[in-house]
Formats: sequence, C-alpha cells, structure tokens
Amino acid sequence: MKRQIVSPDNYYVKLAASLRQKKYREETSLFVVEGLRFVKEALDSAWTLEYVVVDEDKVDNDKIQELLASLAERNCPVLSVPLKLYKKISETENPQGILAVIKQKTQSLEELPIGGPTSLWVILDSLQDPGNVGTIIRAADAAGAAGVLLTPDCADLYAGKTTRATMGSLFHIPAVRASVEQCLAFCAQRGLALYAAGAEAAVSYSDVNLTEPCAVIFGNEGAGVCHEFKSHALLNIKIPILGKAESLNVASAAAVILFEAVRQRGAAL
Amino acid sequence: MKRQIVSPDNYYVKLAASLRQKKYREETSLFVVEGLRFVKEALDSAWTLEYVVVDEDKVDNDKIQELLASLAERNCPVLSVPLKLYKKISETENPQGILAVIKQKTQSLEELPIGGPTSLWVILDSLQDPGNVGTIIRAADAAGAAGVLLTPDCADLYAGKTTRATMGSLFHIPAVRASVEQCLAFCAQRGLALYAAGAEAAVSYSDVNLTEPCAVIFGNEGAGVCHEFKSHALLNIKIPILGKAESLNVASAAAVILFEAVRQRGAAL
Repeated sequence: MKRQIVSPDNYYVKLAASLRQKKYREETSLFVVEGLRFVKEALDSAWTLEYVVVDEDKVDNDKIQELLASLAERNCPVLSVPLKLYKKISETENPQGILAVIKQKTQSLEELPIGGPTSLWVILDSLQDPGNVGTIIRAADAAGAAGVLLTPDCADLYAGKTTRATMGSLFHIPAVRASVEQCLAFCAQRGLALYAAGAEAAVSYSDVNLTEPCAVIFGNEGAGVCHEFKSHALLNIKIPILGKAESLNVASAAAVILFEAVRQRGAAL
Repeated sequence: MKRQIVSPDNYYVKLAASLRQKKYREETSLFVVEGLRFVKEALDSAWTLEYVVVDEDKVDNDKIQELLASLAERNCPVLSVPLKLYKKISETENPQGILAVIKQKTQSLEELPIGGPTSLWVILDSLQDPGNVGTIIRAADAAGAAGVLLTPDCADLYAGKTTRATMGSLFHIPAVRASVEQCLAFCAQRGLALYAAGAEAAVSYSDVNLTEPCAVIFGNEGAGVCHEFKSHALLNIKIPILGKAESLNVASAAAVILFEAVRQRGAAL
C-alpha cells in the first residue's frame, strides 16, 4: 500500500498540508498527528486513519519500519514523499518523518459512557489556549476521568498544538463539544454534582467531597467560568493561593483538582 | 524622561530587539517583558527597569498613561516609537504597546532567604520547555514556595515564553541557576528533605509527609529526573496514573505535588 509521491500538486499532500488551517479541518473533518508515538496511539485506538505520510529519507528507520508493518496489516495507505513535501505538512521543527491524517470523531453526548458510580467529568468553558486544552485532556485521562466536554468557543481540539499537548490522550478518553445548556442537561441527567473552579470562590477544593460522581468546570484563561455555569454549580470552588501569584495556570489548576479527587477516591476505597 | 524615536538604527531600539535572542540576553544580562501587567509587576518589584518602550499610537491609552506616570516618578527613561519599530522588539501578536528592558538578577544560593520552618523549594532538572519552566515558577509562587532552583541546561529563564508563562511570578520569588551538586549542597545545608518526582517511583506523593521543610525535584520532559538527583533523594515519589496516559505534563505534576504540600500544611495548622 506504499506509494511514492514527488509532486507538490498531489491531492493527498495538498489535503494534508491544508489541515494546518482550522477552516479545512472543519470542512473535511480530518486532522493530522505527527510522530511515531502519536501515529501508534492512533493506530491502537478506535479512530480511523485515512492515510499516513512518511519522509522518504526516514523510511528505513527501524521504528518507522515497525509502524509501517502494522499499518500494512490494517491496509492503511502510506505515501512516501521527499522531505521538501513532508515539510509542507509538518508543523514540527525536527520531524520524526511520519504523520497520519485521521478522521475526527463526532460523538453525541448521549453516546458517552456512563462512567460508573464514581465517574469524574471535566468541562472546559471557553478555554483559548490549545496547549491548555490538550494538557487538561492529558490530565483528565491520567486522573481516570470519564471524559471532557468543551464549549463551542474552546480552542480547536484538532489543532496541532492541542493534539500534541494531549500526548495521545485524545485517543484515550472522549472529548466532545457541547453548549453550556447541553453540558448542564448532561450533568442533571446523569446526577453529576457540578463544581465550578474559580479564584473568587469561597470554598476550598480540598474541603469538598469529590468522591461522588461529579463534573468540574474550568473557565477561560482571563474571564474564568461564565455566569451561567457558576449560577448552576452546586458549589464554586477555589484553590487557595499563598504567594503573590494571582492564580494558577488553568491546566495546573485542573490537575490539582482532578488529582485531589483521585486522592480522596483512593483514600475512600 | 520621554523621548521620541523614529530611527530603526537607534541604539536602544536595536538593543531591545536583540534581546529576543538568548545570545544577546546573556551578553548584556538584560531581558524584555511586555504588556501592562508585566511592566507594572516589574515596577512594583525590586528589579531594575533600564528603560521602557511604548508604541507612540498607544501613548494616550489611560492605563499606559497611568503606568508612564509611575515610571516618571522613578525616573525610568521611556522611548516612544512608531508601531513599525515597536514590532521589531515585540514578540506578541497583539501587543498592548508597552514593554520594559530589565536587568537580570544573578542571585547566589547563599543570598536566598531561609524560608522559615515550613519552607518549600522547587528544583527543576533540565526542563526543556520554557512554558513549563514559567508555569512551574507561577505554581511555586502560588503555593507559597520559597524559591526555585534550575539546573544549567533548563530552558532560559529570561526567554519571552518563560517570562510570559510566569505571569509575573518571576518578580515574586527567587529563581536561581545552580548545578546538581550546588542544589544537593543547598538542601543538605538547610536540612531540606529531598523528593524526586518520577513516574516509576514506588511511593505515592500523597502518602509522603510534605509538612516538613523540603525540596521537590521535577525532571526533563522526556528523561525525567537525572540519576544523581534520584540517588540522593530521600524518596522518589510518583503521582499514580489511573487512565491510559503515560504521565502528566511536568508543570501539571508540579502543581499537583506543590498543592498537596499546601493541603497537608493547611491541615497541619
């Protein structure tokens, strides 16, 4: 299934290169992940790899060969291209020489797993930074969370910066776009206690019982969690700040609260 | 003290623009911070502002006027330049129109504050990502840590990405370069319990008594904490991972462990 491509006008090369732009990711419902680790994570997941592009100079690399063998077993098309073309697609400075074009997943809230009696959900409200979105998806995965809901104006889940920051966790747990109203209905239907994280809240996160099924909302880097979420939350919770910093980075704050839930749940076993 | 500059050959404009490169930051021991918040944080700190550059089109902005008044009180020179020149210095996409050239601080380990009976220190071992370095300095500040030590091959403390990620915490707590040997001697002299964070450690961070004076080491994004630190640590501690993620982002991990120390110390009061 390996094809040698040398023309910059090749349809698949142009398509993959266009996916650096959000507009084309949205039009095609495709996105790109780069590097051995990410392509392997995608292959090991239930996501659909449309095709893979390799830098022809790196095809003989052992690890790439191994991955290409697995791709061949799955009948995944592989395009081998000169470095010059590879770089038209790649967003990384020192590319490993392999990338995959993958179909986006559009899950509905109804399809999401129930998550068990101790389910933990994360809601991201208007986060602007793709690195923060990706880092929180990674932390949610590490904390054993059931999934992540993202309001429509969050940074694009399928941007390179986002997927890189997830370190593959994008392929491990569901991450679904949903409006504020849909998020609220989802939590109500599933009996999730809703907590909104915010610097101005009265209650400290570690004084809250996080062992019950719950969802924690993290807000925009500047404005925090929106009024509608805050007014519907069971509690607004804060991380007490001891030094002169105004607040924590939102991805750091999410990790602190999610792992407090893990700690409490472990201690409750 | 305000001077109008229109020539791209102006010495101070060229100097400030050169500070985007590490080489010139090291040669001159200067660095640049951008934006109202950062210039104000620097002004309110004990750091030395060499001079400030403003975009001449934004000089009339109320907040910039306010800041310029404070700068005038301190006799800080201000250069007003056309946007075209301003952009030669600025690293941000939508600049607020004010930036400051600041003298780097070279503190020795001996000068660092004792930190009191519950002092908490952070050691960064070969962290490559400036965003991670800055985000951890911010989290250390927020956790009331006494300071941060950085091994020589950590990302540059004075790079724009690092200082931006600190959100001003660079001006709040000491962050000092030190070799592995110097870090170990520092901890021994001050009686700090030394903990190394690592995914393969046997003991969970939340099972460790973090209420005593201690230093926690966080390692390189790929390789983790170096052997020398690990072999000298009182304990190697891990954050238990529940999902399919291999690990947490290092800045997330640092926030989790630092705020576990805060939680334990609060509970111990």
